Amino acid sequence: MDFELQRIVQAALREDIGTGDVTTLSTVDPATVSQAELVAKEEFVQAGIEVAERVFSTLDPDISFEALVADGQAVKRGDVLAWIKGPAAILLQGERVALNFLQRMSGIATLTAAFVREIEGTGATIVDTRKTMPGLRLLDKYAVRAGGGTNHRTSLYDGVLIKENHIRAAGGVKAAIERARKRIPHTLKIEIETTALEEVSEALEAGADIIMLDNMGLKQMEDAVALVDGKAQTEASGGINLETVRAIAETGVDLISVGALTHSSRAVDISMLFES
Amino acid sequence: MDFELQRIVQAALREDIGTGDVTTLSTVDPATVSQAELVAKEEFVQAGIEVAERVFSTLDPDISFEALVADGQAVKRGDVLAWIKGPAAILLQGERVALNFLQRMSGIATLTAAFVREIEGTGATIVDTRKTMPGLRLLDKYAVRAGGGTNHRTSLYDGVLIKENHIRAAGGVKAAIERARKRIPHTLKIEIETTALEEVSEALEAGADIIMLDNMGLKQMEDAVALVDGKAQTEASGGINLETVRAIAETGVDLISVGALTHSSRAVDISMLFES
Amino acid sequence: MDFELQRIVQAALREDIGTGDVTTLSTVDPATVSQAELVAKEEFVQAGIEVAERVFSTLDPDISFEALVADGQAVKRGDVLAWIKGPAAILLQGERVALNFLQRMSGIATLTAAFVREIEGTGATIVDTRKTMPGLRLLDKYAVRAGGGTNHRTSLYDGVLIKENHIRAAGGVKAAIERARKRIPHTLKIEIETTALEEVSEALEAGADIIMLDNMGLKQMEDAVALVDGKAQTEASGGINLETVRAIAETGVDLISVGALTHSSRAVDISMLFES
Amino acid sequence: MDFELQRIVQAALREDIGTGDVTTLSTVDPATVSQAELVAKEEFVQAGIEVAERVFSTLDPDISFEALVADGQAVKRGDVLAWIKGPAAILLQGERVALNFLQRMSGIATLTAAFVREIEGTGATIVDTRKTMPGLRLLDKYAVRAGGGTNHRTSLYDGVLIKENHIRAAGGVKAAIERARKRIPHTLKIEIETTALEEVSEALEAGADIIMLDNMGLKQMEDAVALVDGKAQTEASGGINLETVRAIAETGVDLISVGALTHSSRAVDISMLFES
Amino acid sequence: MDFELQRIVQAALREDIGTGDVTTLSTVDPATVSQAELVAKEEFVQAGIEVAERVFSTLDPDISFEALVADGQAVKRGDVLAWIKGPAAILLQGERVALNFLQRMSGIATLTAAFVREIEGTGATIVDTRKTMPGLRLLDKYAVRAGGGTNHRTSLYDGVLIKENHIRAAGGVKAAIERARKRIPHTLKIEIETTALEEVSEALEAGADIIMLDNMGLKQMEDAVALVDGKAQTEASGGINLETVRAIAETGVDLISVGALTHSSRAVDISMLFES
Amino acid sequence: MDFELQRIVQAALREDIGTGDVTTLSTVDPATVSQAELVAKEEFVQAGIEVAERVFSTLDPDISFEALVADGQAVKRGDVLAWIKGPAAILLQGERVALNFLQRMSGIATLTAAFVREIEGTGATIVDTRKTMPGLRLLDKYAVRAGGGTNHRTSLYDGVLIKENHIRAAGGVKAAIERARKRIPHTLKIEIETTALEEVSEALEAGADIIMLDNMGLKQMEDAVALVDGKAQTEASGGINLETVRAIAETGVDLISVGALTHSSRAVDISMLFES
Repeated sequence: MDFELQRIVQAALREDIGTGDVTTLSTVDPATVSQAELVAKEEFVQAGIEVAERVFSTLDPDISFEALVADGQAVKRGDVLAWIKGPAAILLQGERVALNFLQRMSGIATLTAAFVREIEGTGATIVDTRKTMPGLRLLDKYAVRAGGGTNHRTSLYDGVLIKENHIRAAGGVKAAIERARKRIPHTLKIEIETTALEEVSEALEAGADIIMLDNMGLKQMEDAVALVDGKAQTEASGGINLETVRAIAETGVDLISVGALTHSSRAVDISMLFES
Repeated sequence: MDFELQRIVQAALREDIGTGDVTTLSTVDPATVSQAELVAKEEFVQAGIEVAERVFSTLDPDISFEALVADGQAVKRGDVLAWIKGPAAILLQGERVALNFLQRMSGIATLTAAFVREIEGTGATIVDTRKTMPGLRLLDKYAVRAGGGTNHRTSLYDGVLIKENHIRAAGGVKAAIERARKRIPHTLKIEIETTALEEVSEALEAGADIIMLDNMGLKQMEDAVALVDGKAQTEASGGINLETVRAIAETGVDLISVGALTHSSRAVDISMLFES
Repeated sequence: MDFELQRIVQAALREDIGTGDVTTLSTVDPATVSQAELVAKEEFVQAGIEVAERVFSTLDPDISFEALVADGQAVKRGDVLAWIKGPAAILLQGERVALNFLQRMSGIATLTAAFVREIEGTGATIVDTRKTMPGLRLLDKYAVRAGGGTNHRTSLYDGVLIKENHIRAAGGVKAAIERARKRIPHTLKIEIETTALEEVSEALEAGADIIMLDNMGLKQMEDAVALVDGKAQTEASGGINLETVRAIAETGVDLISVGALTHSSRAVDISMLFES
Repeated sequence: MDFELQRIVQAALREDIGTGDVTTLSTVDPATVSQAELVAKEEFVQAGIEVAERVFSTLDPDISFEALVADGQAVKRGDVLAWIKGPAAILLQGERVALNFLQRMSGIATLTAAFVREIEGTGATIVDTRKTMPGLRLLDKYAVRAGGGTNHRTSLYDGVLIKENHIRAAGGVKAAIERARKRIPHTLKIEIETTALEEVSEALEAGADIIMLDNMGLKQMEDAVALVDGKAQTEASGGINLETVRAIAETGVDLISVGALTHSSRAVDISMLFES
Repeated sequence: MDFELQRIVQAALREDIGTGDVTTLSTVDPATVSQAELVAKEEFVQAGIEVAERVFSTLDPDISFEALVADGQAVKRGDVLAWIKGPAAILLQGERVALNFLQRMSGIATLTAAFVREIEGTGATIVDTRKTMPGLRLLDKYAVRAGGGTNHRTSLYDGVLIKENHIRAAGGVKAAIERARKRIPHTLKIEIETTALEEVSEALEAGADIIMLDNMGLKQMEDAVALVDGKAQTEASGGINLETVRAIAETGVDLISVGALTHSSRAVDISMLFES
Repeated sequence: MDFELQRIVQAALREDIGTGDVTTLSTVDPATVSQAELVAKEEFVQAGIEVAERVFSTLDPDISFEALVADGQAVKRGDVLAWIKGPAAILLQGERVALNFLQRMSGIATLTAAFVREIEGTGATIVDTRKTMPGLRLLDKYAVRAGGGTNHRTSLYDGVLIKENHIRAAGGVKAAIERARKRIPHTLKIEIETTALEEVSEALEAGADIIMLDNMGLKQMEDAVALVDGKAQTEASGGINLETVRAIAETGVDLISVGALTHSSRAVDISMLFES
């Protein structure tokens, strides 16, 4: 992930600093050294502290950055997440970008943790989707893991998920699965989307490894799980929220994928406080 | 913006498709042509339809994409935003990326429009911040405009905003403003952050063009606006939400900057429906 | 693949042309138009004709290139693979790069086809490896498919293959498989390398999806296949050549991976002949 | 070459690791440190040990890599080429890419050395061609030097080689040479391809610096060498192999260019063995 | 600026070194260490010493480079600007690129200083323009500052300058200013080009922050300055040279923009002398 | 050159436009179409009209650009160089970048033409150097050709020029030439720098192809030319200007290299006039 992280951080800094931070360059003596701390302004599960560090170390490799909280840990309002020491001009130039990453990633981890807590004790697993921020998928998926979730495929190249339109284009569930099996690397499983019990049966017969139950009702999901009976994995999908997730998990599905984790989390509140 | 848009769209496609969409490549005949429509699944203000089009045209310049709704327009559940026609394999490969952009951008426009509506009739203007998604600032800021908001500076290079730590490093409000004035291009105004009335006075005397009133109470803001008395622009800032924004606007401030527009909007619900 | 192909072709042209083809620029009138044909100088299975076309169209979008042989087709000495028409200067500048791609890719396809022919009638499948030319993996893997082979995982991100050193680091076959299962996307199967029958048993019990039989003798492989008994896929691996491949296929293994397809194929002989 | 090497190595790692080595990340503790050695599994001439080192140091600058064999040196089966020590996860992620480079480059060096040995004692020099792997020309040419060969021009920009089609386009041998002389930097020599004695004469009269004897028979080559009589360099070219090269060298030509060095060498066998 | 500097320096080195410095690689032992000094061969104001250092440190991070003269300082013929020590091969490969930067930048600083000296005692300020070398704007603008000048906007994104054709397209001075005010970030001032007194009045009334007096005569400029009377900044522009600049400054304008600073400065003479 | 041109033009536009031309975007209706012409404001030799066209066509492929003057042609004040028609917003955004290229390149061509005219009738040739603008070498060298000059090597990779420090490092003139000859591609000539007649003799004996006479007096140059007597090419070098070049040419040297062509030319005056 390191290559990608470096690329993402540099691009974000280039976007924000561009031809120069005119405020800092004109008002702050480059020799002034400052200390600052990243402080939680509310309760959340942290993710992205290494990304924040990378923002500053990219601007100045000699910056000192000490993380006090590990990603995945829950923090309370007032907790100090990290100490940073270095040229004031560097701290000021990196502040916004570091916070933008850390606040988003912690927001995702916090929302994920809420979903995971909600289904505790059921056998289900919360997984993410490809509904991530363009360009930031790796960070989004890392944040999901920090929040206790599990990752679905990264992208279109490392997982097969046959959806309704693939099925139609291939000429049916069975044809689609057979075509896929013949052409994909043998290292990949085959997942297929179903919306009715007949499709579940058909998928099962055709040898699908994972069966997605898309926008099914609770009763229908239970029936589908019973029908599958452990012969494939099952994944509930479609507009699932914190209110509905527990009941879904209790239908016995193996996986519950939640787009909101990454498309509708909000930024948590974190401040960077300079010591006087 | 065109260069940047092209770069952003290509990067997003590369992130999602990488070495190939194994599902589509294995199940869909490249010669199959499909039609699909983008449909609103809830009420919102649209932004990003050109970005969605660019996703498909980047994959295949010959795709046909007809936008039915202009950015900035409000839509109802069920409204068709665009018609798309081209190889099914292309539509399927671009679907998720196009929706990721369109759903985020429309989410920002919708939230912005809510803030703008809330302060209707006051003289204030809603502006955005640099609390945007790393790598997507131009799109985020475009979406704010589509929602009826106005943009603050793009980045650190095209606006001066002297914050508390710049002031301290420069040795006071007056020193900071003077240092900036001497060193920045004469085409830039000087904005400075204040947290108390004395600082407002000091900033005014030093000739600040814009005075940010940071996290002030309503009464304090009113006093600040009275004190400034049109000799500079005033900008309210700090944790402003839909509940508090009207009262703040009524203090008489010129500008209200809202980080939440871009750091905590949620994705609106849009589907891409294939015609059978 | 299109993005990647464009990137690879441009890089190859930049490598070869750089600041300019001093010979062509100084001796050939830019207005001179020529016709040429790509001709097979020996028997082989073609792969890469689209790449060759892309070389010329990248130099000049108006070039006319008509492919007469489809990839995967066998050709005889003297067969014309394609007709090209355009500025002589363009044809001359693209010639070497186009041939470098086409000769290598056809070399891989030809060698793959020889392996595939050798095991005809057995149930085994020839697959490639990651022993490809750095930077050209996608083309190498495409050429394997053109030759009738099947692709193993593309890279380290789209397939799990637990090797001896992973096993040791994880503390044994069972531990390795369990660790992997908990952390990888559920869309990926788990393949594990074994070198002895006890390891095969252990892998099977731990639920491996694919069992690699690494450098085993024929008898040992047969025993392993019998032991696995269809409960997982089996893959023979290790220094397999055209002399040994048939006997290996007859042990009943499902897959036979051959590094030589991409690390030791030779370029086939193709000429670009200009019409006088 | 350093810039280019860095670029090539990073691209190769990005190609192979992409979004992450799912096997290693899920099974190997990042804190585990390992030692490994690169071992020759057959006899060959080594080339590329610095490239192998760069692969690992790019992944982790603190890796320890000690080369025991210098490029250009012949090794026997069992010889240890280098010791490597560092995090097991790094060694495992870099292994395949490092070997892909080292095995190809050593393959080229070994084949080059065979040609060089074959013509020992004659005055001729073995040179390479532009028939290299797209994107890897610098490494291919380095490997040729490691094997005792000499490099022809790198690319189209640093050497003039007027071929049959340039001659035709320019209106004859004399016209082509004159046009080139007038337009190329004076730091470049002019080489021209000939296929018959009359062309050799004509080239000589027109002042060619180097005369390529393309696909001539042995007798014809001898005559050409006699005709040239030291007034230009001569280069034999066209399908030359280990069986034919000695006789060609004995015709008295100065240079013998061999495309097979880089288009048809095979990978030598090298293993990376982890210490238990 | 650091990111940009790194990018610019690497591109310049890649341009000059490309696939390798054939002279140095073939004649200089990589182990030979040399010392050299950068020496002024004429009088000038230095700019760019850090860029020169970056050239060498990019080639070899362990090079020792000691700057003896700070940018902005005037030097005499024979002054030593810096000492450099490191591998002779590195010094030789970096020499030309380092000098190309340093000679241009010092040329700009020297010319700027001449303009600044010429208007000493008047209240005017010398500013640069966008007439810079494509790709080198940041360095050109830095050199202007080193010579005592001040920067105008960097580019089209960080300053508004409404020119004649914008005015015409917008439908007049007033309309143009109003349209701009409504749409640009509030952090930017508005500058407008005028060529006659009526336009100056109109611009003033429309609230322009800065009024450019384009190609006006001295008398007209004086009248314009009187008319503006401190209610906006004034900027003289148009073919200004060392002969005319003093009289212009004495008209009372605030700013004088001089394209020649960056489009027509000449390189100063600097040598890199190797110690024997 | 096309690849490189595209890259250079895009970088220049990105540098100037960045996140957007705030002036044009806020004042000019995107639908407004304009016509403009590029007009010479003084006498010069034109170079770069294709680059100017590329600037506009990169912004908008549908722009209409008709060049009226071919590069290399001399123009008078008032001559129209090209007609341009397209969206006013595009013309305004491309104007400065197009002029920056065209004015510099024409400046180089004009200065080169002056040198060429000065030595008319002698046998000498004016050549350029590597003292070009970082990043713009190809354009600088093109402009030299447009002015009637000839190019020296492009960069360090396509020509050998052994300078004083290479000689010292190699252990003398003879050693340096021998080392070079053994290691460089046979397609390159060897040039060596000399400062005294003894060195000229030594270089000649060692077989140098080109002998640079560095900073020699006229008499010394004549003697050197006589000594060389056609057995190598001779190149005068070192601080040559329009006053001294004729006398130098009359010493009989073959080549005269002039750094000032590219390091100290001034921009010629060209305007872009919009039709009312």
